[in-house]
Amino acid sequence: MTPEAFRQYGHQLIDLIADYRQTVQQRPVMAQVEPGYLKAALPPAAPQQGEPFDAILKDVDGLIMPGLSHWQHPDFYGYFPSNGTLSSVLGDFLSTGLGVLGLSWQSSPALSELEETTLDWLRQMLGLSQQWSGVIQDTASTSTLVALICARERSSDYALVRHGLQGQDQPLIVYVSAHAHSSVDKAALLAGFGRDNIRLIATDEAYALCPTALEQAIEQDLAAGNRPCAIVATCGTTATTALDPLRAISALAQQHGLWLHVDSAMSGSAMILPECRWMWDGIELADSVVVNAHKWLGVAFDCSVYYVRDPQHLVRVMSTNPSYLQSSVDGQVKNLRDWGIPLGRRFRALKLWFMLRAEGVEALQARLRRDLDNARWLAEQVRAASDWQLLAPVPLQTLCLRHCPEGMAGQALDAHTRAWAERMNASGDAYVTPAVLDGRWMVRVSIGALGTEKEDVQRLWARLQHVVQG
Amino acid sequence: MTPEAFRQYGHQLIDLIADYRQTVQQRPVMAQVEPGYLKAALPPAAPQQGEPFDAILKDVDGLIMPGLSHWQHPDFYGYFPSNGTLSSVLGDFLSTGLGVLGLSWQSSPALSELEETTLDWLRQMLGLSQQWSGVIQDTASTSTLVALICARERSSDYALVRHGLQGQDQPLIVYVSAHAHSSVDKAALLAGFGRDNIRLIATDEAYALCPTALEQAIEQDLAAGNRPCAIVATCGTTATTALDPLRAISALAQQHGLWLHVDSAMSGSAMILPECRWMWDGIELADSVVVNAHKWLGVAFDCSVYYVRDPQHLVRVMSTNPSYLQSSVDGQVKNLRDWGIPLGRRFRALKLWFMLRAEGVEALQARLRRDLDNARWLAEQVRAASDWQLLAPVPLQTLCLRHCPEGMAGQALDAHTRAWAERMNASGDAYVTPAVLDGRWMVRVSIGALGTEKEDVQRLWARLQHVVQG
Repeated sequence: MTPEAFRQYGHQLIDLIADYRQTVQQRPVMAQVEPGYLKAALPPAAPQQGEPFDAILKDVDGLIMPGLSHWQHPDFYGYFPSNGTLSSVLGDFLSTGLGVLGLSWQSSPALSELEETTLDWLRQMLGLSQQWSGVIQDTASTSTLVALICARERSSDYALVRHGLQGQDQPLIVYVSAHAHSSVDKAALLAGFGRDNIRLIATDEAYALCPTALEQAIEQDLAAGNRPCAIVATCGTTATTALDPLRAISALAQQHGLWLHVDSAMSGSAMILPECRWMWDGIELADSVVVNAHKWLGVAFDCSVYYVRDPQHLVRVMSTNPSYLQSSVDGQVKNLRDWGIPLGRRFRALKLWFMLRAEGVEALQARLRRDLDNARWLAEQVRAASDWQLLAPVPLQTLCLRHCPEGMAGQALDAHTRAWAERMNASGDAYVTPAVLDGRWMVRVSIGALGTEKEDVQRLWARLQHVVQG
Repeated sequence: MTPEAFRQYGHQLIDLIADYRQTVQQRPVMAQVEPGYLKAALPPAAPQQGEPFDAILKDVDGLIMPGLSHWQHPDFYGYFPSNGTLSSVLGDFLSTGLGVLGLSWQSSPALSELEETTLDWLRQMLGLSQQWSGVIQDTASTSTLVALICARERSSDYALVRHGLQGQDQPLIVYVSAHAHSSVDKAALLAGFGRDNIRLIATDEAYALCPTALEQAIEQDLAAGNRPCAIVATCGTTATTALDPLRAISALAQQHGLWLHVDSAMSGSAMILPECRWMWDGIELADSVVVNAHKWLGVAFDCSVYYVRDPQHLVRVMSTNPSYLQSSVDGQVKNLRDWGIPLGRRFRALKLWFMLRAEGVEALQARLRRDLDNARWLAEQVRAASDWQLLAPVPLQTLCLRHCPEGMAGQALDAHTRAWAERMNASGDAYVTPAVLDGRWMVRVSIGALGTEKEDVQRLWARLQHVVQG
């Protein structure tokens, strides 16, 4: 495609996207398609000759759009918000259009330096001290894997990178809340800790990790001759946005010399609000923290920000230095390939920079406060309704609900919950996420899509009351 | 930013990118800036109030552009090509603009199904049999890490994911060519194999892995009570695009039950040309292979395609299934979160789909053949010039050169090589990559940027002859 054709079709595509964002609320929020619908509709092989761009756009409209669940839809209350503010979308367009790659500072100096600068801006916005250095990873899953590999190497004095799996006599133990995200478990397995060596620590009535149980578990492992290695604490768990008590946990980490990684993938965005920072009190004593700027905050996916206190250790674990990547300025610059797993990196800082500059900190704060207010309002309605239960505290913008008709319990209640959640999603009117809490199904309502205003949440409450009637 | 503002600024940005691509050759190909130039020019903190979009674009022009090394420049001969065809750029724009996320099939059905379909199209284009299933990863570094973790778990009968690091009495050994990419080493260390257990196998006079040396190494390890686990073979090494002999290597892998991962990150693109497929003869006996569609082939970065023969094993190693990600159709669909490390995924198949449809297979083949012809032409010039050396075979589009003034050798020759490469890059006229081969510096010229035509390569040859004069 020539630049002139790109200019023509690019303008068409901009209009398509602007129209999509303007009218997305008219679409059913969850895709109404059956498994295999698209595979059956597409040709079995790539075309030998190029096709007109209009044919592609026609299929986007006819085949792709019906198969999307619309994350930017004001009635999207599923999972957690994944907001792509349109200013950050433009930053990402520039990144893709320029097509430059960060392998080393020299391979695109602006790419490295803008990442360093914007992550320092974000650090200040989150209220983190100057002792933190950041890097953009793709997702929190990857950030947590990097954290646990770093923990493994610190605990073993780099034995794993030297001698490998069999060099370790004592099992290295990882401690996580029973409510930690599935990616924490996965990261521990991929890093080689083994399922036997992941301790799921009990939580309190608010689903937050219980420090006393953590202390007991550490002491039991020490007594058994095991080697405590790392704690992953979560600030805003996936099921209920529970807040593990970082201050008490960090004291245990310090006492026993354990790596403390904090998964603030969701709640990290809230830390741009000074009134929310009590939620991660103790964060300064952690070793690493992940904040997904691509969630509630609004940077187009993917932009998972990983902050560490000891970048030298990270670089020691992750660095490679083949001759074809060396340059004469290596001593003076950051080479971000040594801050994570991939060698090549996109110019992801552009989308963060565009958003921060185009929106400004105050507008971002105002949007998050709007969502917190809406969540508080909905929580009040639920608490006041006799046939509804609010199952967990609502420190952020996610509610855990259950509709409990009189006399219904056990499996019948589970069936009722799953049925109305499925009806709601199938209706296309709103998208919610069913999940299990304390062995029973409930429904998560996660407020915070860009376009979700108070009246949308009011309409949601009416819909919820209606859909549970069958 | 409202959709209407996005429409306005989006059109501006499309024109900016179209202009950039049309005029990129007028810019110095390598950035001419000093370390720290951008950090010093940017404000110390994010703005409290939003700024006009024009102010951002002004800084893109004044601050970002001078700090870029231009990968889409026709005079870019560095590293390997990383082509972002403009059709795939538009596909990526759509992905970012839609802002949908793949956590599970249900979270965006079209995202999963288009990835499955387009990777099957690509499989056919590469001449791979139906026994392969593919998934898009970010980079080959990640693909190789996934491969080695899968190898680790197959060799240990899932002992690592169960019992962890200390469960392994016998060291697991990984075999790689001494010319393998630095990411292979890194992946083995991150997966916990340990540097002591990475065997760097000798290469032949064409820098390809020597199967006899591999066989000896395996036998030595068996004799020593070690446990051979995996071989990483490279089809197109980074330094010289050497081709490890897959047929012989795969026979050893089969004989000893080793995982064979093939790093075809670079050469994979060439397999859309039937006349190139001899280069990976034996590929069907491998367990996994990585092809970076974001390199020479032209899909906008990142699009590293990872094909495996046993997806069930991959899913067993990588899967997580928390309640909040379950849906009623899970048995009928692929959940791509279980095919790699990250949970969330962008709609990356769109950029592959847009490119394949807009360009068509034949045009892609023609472009790659143009580059192979250009590389052959330049190789002939170098061979015919008495003061130049061509240091390795040129099966693909990358040349390894050295200018050897009469009587110059050793460190003086190294100093000469590094000096003229630095002069070339500093001139902004062409971008090349110095690297070490057999302990001596040489210069890699990697042809294959989208805009590089025969006359550009002719001009490069004239420049090379000129720049070595000092």
